Amino acid sequence: MISVFEATELVLGSVRPYGEEYVAIEDAVGRVLAEAIVATRDMPPFDRVAMDGIAIDYAAYAAGQRQFEIEKRIAAGDPIGTLSDTHKAVEIMTGAALPKGADTVIPYEALTIEDNVAHIVSDRVVQGQNVHAQGVDLQKGATLLAPGHWIQPADLALLATEGKAKVRVRRAPSFAILSTGDELVPIDQEPLPHQIRRSNVYAVQALLRQYHVQSIMLHLADDPEAMHDQLRALMGKVDAWICIGGVSKGKKDFLPQVLEALGVRKLFHRVAQRPGKPFWFGATDEIVVFALPGNPVSSIVGTVRYVLPWVRSCLGLPWDYSISVQLAEPFRFDPPLVRFVESELYHDSSGVCRAAPRPGHGSGDFTRLAYTKGFVELPADRTHFQPGEVYPFWPFHTFVA
Amino acid sequence: MISVFEATELVLGSVRPYGEEYVAIEDAVGRVLAEAIVATRDMPPFDRVAMDGIAIDYAAYAAGQRQFEIEKRIAAGDPIGTLSDTHKAVEIMTGAALPKGADTVIPYEALTIEDNVAHIVSDRVVQGQNVHAQGVDLQKGATLLAPGHWIQPADLALLATEGKAKVRVRRAPSFAILSTGDELVPIDQEPLPHQIRRSNVYAVQALLRQYHVQSIMLHLADDPEAMHDQLRALMGKVDAWICIGGVSKGKKDFLPQVLEALGVRKLFHRVAQRPGKPFWFGATDEIVVFALPGNPVSSIVGTVRYVLPWVRSCLGLPWDYSISVQLAEPFRFDPPLVRFVESELYHDSSGVCRAAPRPGHGSGDFTRLAYTKGFVELPADRTHFQPGEVYPFWPFHTFVA
Repeated sequence: MISVFEATELVLGSVRPYGEEYVAIEDAVGRVLAEAIVATRDMPPFDRVAMDGIAIDYAAYAAGQRQFEIEKRIAAGDPIGTLSDTHKAVEIMTGAALPKGADTVIPYEALTIEDNVAHIVSDRVVQGQNVHAQGVDLQKGATLLAPGHWIQPADLALLATEGKAKVRVRRAPSFAILSTGDELVPIDQEPLPHQIRRSNVYAVQALLRQYHVQSIMLHLADDPEAMHDQLRALMGKVDAWICIGGVSKGKKDFLPQVLEALGVRKLFHRVAQRPGKPFWFGATDEIVVFALPGNPVSSIVGTVRYVLPWVRSCLGLPWDYSISVQLAEPFRFDPPLVRFVESELYHDSSGVCRAAPRPGHGSGDFTRLAYTKGFVELPADRTHFQPGEVYPFWPFHTFVA
Repeated sequence: MISVFEATELVLGSVRPYGEEYVAIEDAVGRVLAEAIVATRDMPPFDRVAMDGIAIDYAAYAAGQRQFEIEKRIAAGDPIGTLSDTHKAVEIMTGAALPKGADTVIPYEALTIEDNVAHIVSDRVVQGQNVHAQGVDLQKGATLLAPGHWIQPADLALLATEGKAKVRVRRAPSFAILSTGDELVPIDQEPLPHQIRRSNVYAVQALLRQYHVQSIMLHLADDPEAMHDQLRALMGKVDAWICIGGVSKGKKDFLPQVLEALGVRKLFHRVAQRPGKPFWFGATDEIVVFALPGNPVSSIVGTVRYVLPWVRSCLGLPWDYSISVQLAEPFRFDPPLVRFVESELYHDSSGVCRAAPRPGHGSGDFTRLAYTKGFVELPADRTHFQPGEVYPFWPFHTFVA
């Protein structure tokens, strides 16, 4: 049995790149950028008018002139114009390019206009005001978004401004999600009294989909030869497997031996944690295999704590997406194991993020998943955990911050 | 000009329900449940064996018996069996139903088995141990997930266990996202020196898509008659419009009058905030119209602070999804306006969520969107904001907690 730390190191030691692909800008949110987005123009690309009003040459104002005849009008979308007489003004709209010869914009709020002559009624005009100067935000050639950036909704404005209708992103590894256990029936089937429906696989698939992982689902027979054939047929079809169940010490737990017979090299079996202790992990040159225990909470913990960090690392994101939270209530756990405990999560009115443990009746109890937001990770070398102490929290739903 | 509080009240006063629809379980994450998910069986549905080992009658153990002949084997997926002789044992697997006549499971770790006889080597056996008793997590008829629940990845395990291959969810309002401004060209076009590409609309669409909002994009001509015709043709096609630009005081800002000519009742125009002051809001019986100023940061602020709360409220989610954060650095803002300031966000090592303001060069500067996570909302009646003070933070990417 190895520690959670050692298991994490071995999982991250199996990280590989899975190439790149193009997606439409509309599908880019949540993807990891594989190219640098470089400003091909200054930002703004021209001296951009930021208020509606008149554009003047500040020198005339500084010399005391307060009345400016309007020589023309320029709207957003009009080509860059010229103020031909520096003692006159151009009436101008937000978003337009500042005309040559002008350097300052006086907004309507500071004007009266009569018979095509604007009177400036403010004496607080500053040279260059209300002009969003070319290149002030960013200069041509600067990096807007770097490779490895995890694209969020607001970033699409930056991609669009650079004309990235298609965006080059990193490809996530593809998965097969493999359930085991003869007691399981498909979701659309009525279970007999001793049966239950397959359920974990849907949660695991949804957790993976947060990183745009493509996955297929398959149920394995509780029979070593049939299982061997099913898994051999899967070789080369996907990049990684998550097997659920069949890794404990029972008579039917022959998944580890089947995997090893298929040439999957065992990297560890059993981790000093609860839930999820019988976790088996291995790899070949082609695939990486996470074999998680079959209880619902165990398989979700294994996905959140090991599979998603591996996926993130393959994509070049920081593997550790846990956040630091304060424990909201005391908790006790005696065995010398890391304890992952389902918890509610909230931001209190002082800005502190707090987690309240809501352990169920063991790893088979998944009724609490509906109102918990993830797991607090409590270290193995302590037994009494007090309110206010800070621990890592692993969310079910990935946070950005 | 009205306050941010009043504007919020008026926006939320226009909340309407938009019906329900069915989605496949695979597409249910992020949707809002429209039905109660009720347990149709106890959870677990039978006395479920939680460890591999032997099932015995505890009375025999209590009477001193330590050797149990194995009378049969039962695996997960086998029908519910019976321990016919209460002085014998059934060898049993995790996930199986406990046989009638047995009440306690001794794991392999506490056994030696020789010649079909199990010897119990532990003296710490407790009646009922390693049995996940029928109904202990939840009883038949109890609510697993209530209507209005915002479905997260782990919840799919609960939907699947109840056989919900299709899930009834609330329908989000559909949107048209309408850009204005003759200086804007499509994303796939090379802009001339005085032009820029349409960009805000992509960010706004991505922000909406977090709530599974369907939207179309359309560019409006900077001409009142053409605009009138385009908007009239759109009537009845979608539930809500977001217009971007054309609401300030410029000569080309005739969007408010066109909207009113179309029968859209103005509920307010101009809000005491920066950025986004020229925000116009109105409605008819059929549509709700958010007309946001066209600067990139303004339109994103308007979407995050008003449109998304409206969408959430239409779906029956709490409208206020801001979180309380501590300011990480001092900030000063003198005008008597609410200031929404782009900020970085992080959880520090004491569990506190902190926001660091990163204001750009005005609302036209959207280069900071790549490394800020949302907006801090600073009240209008103060000018100096100090580190450690707590304010609401509106994230670009929706948090669950």
